[in-house]
Amino acid sequence: MSHGSPLPEPRPAGEKGRRARSIDEFAVGDRVSVRRVFDDAAVRAFAELSGDFNELHVDDGYARRSRFGRRVVHGMLTASLFTRLIGMELPGRGTIYLGQQLRFTAPVFVGDEVEAVVEVTAIDRARRRMTLATTVTRADGKPAVVG
Amino acid sequence: MSHGSPLPEPRPAGEKGRRARSIDEFAVGDRVSVRRVFDDAAVRAFAELSGDFNELHVDDGYARRSRFGRRVVHGMLTASLFTRLIGMELPGRGTIYLGQQLRFTAPVFVGDEVEAVVEVTAIDRARRRMTLATTVTRADGKPAVVG
Repeated sequence: MSHGSPLPEPRPAGEKGRRARSIDEFAVGDRVSVRRVFDDAAVRAFAELSGDFNELHVDDGYARRSRFGRRVVHGMLTASLFTRLIGMELPGRGTIYLGQQLRFTAPVFVGDEVEAVVEVTAIDRARRRMTLATTVTRADGKPAVVG
Repeated sequence: MSHGSPLPEPRPAGEKGRRARSIDEFAVGDRVSVRRVFDDAAVRAFAELSGDFNELHVDDGYARRSRFGRRVVHGMLTASLFTRLIGMELPGRGTIYLGQQLRFTAPVFVGDEVEAVVEVTAIDRARRRMTLATTVTRADGKPAVVG
């Protein structure tokens, strides 16, 4: 689950369609999604950026001998799909990201496609806050990240 | 708060000091930390990787006119310090990251130093699970991410 607060500021003139949307323009059930494959280059870039070079993510031989059998995408990299959807689409521009709960329920393997979905589950118009359900699902239908 | 499960597998021979630690080697109060500055290059790399090009992160002019006055590091990038500490140090090698709760309590600005701390708060030896307190604090002492 995730909490965000869409703010109506600032709205530069002449950028039609890119302004921050008011909380009144959203409804429970609004939903956006994105599909993505985290390939080797993405996983290595995230390892560099985060400093997390855990062998399960970056070492084929180690991963093969582990219970997973294959290299696993960093959970936090998979979860970065949420920041993209929330920061860019729903609620998008002007959002203040207040929090995110993450449960890593199944591994996402390097090179496999996943789909992230963000859906509005509650709107508190008085406090100008929205609650979003956030899920990443693997191609086999298994939920990998639930928040 | 974060949950992890250190697994005693696999332990390649001849890699002294790099093997996965058993859960019996950890104690409540064990603590690791790291200091980091997220500079412009790191924020742009994360924007590329996640697809989150929200102006608050990447556009100086927009950020200046916003309530924050400066560009803000993606919350999820700041939180990547946890995956580094958890994946590499505590519990480190062999860890399965089960979940992470994140509250973004204050903005982290591009170029400012922060400190991430991970501390063991509970150990369930029967289920082989550890609970960790995870915090990122700004140089002015304000907590920025609490989990």
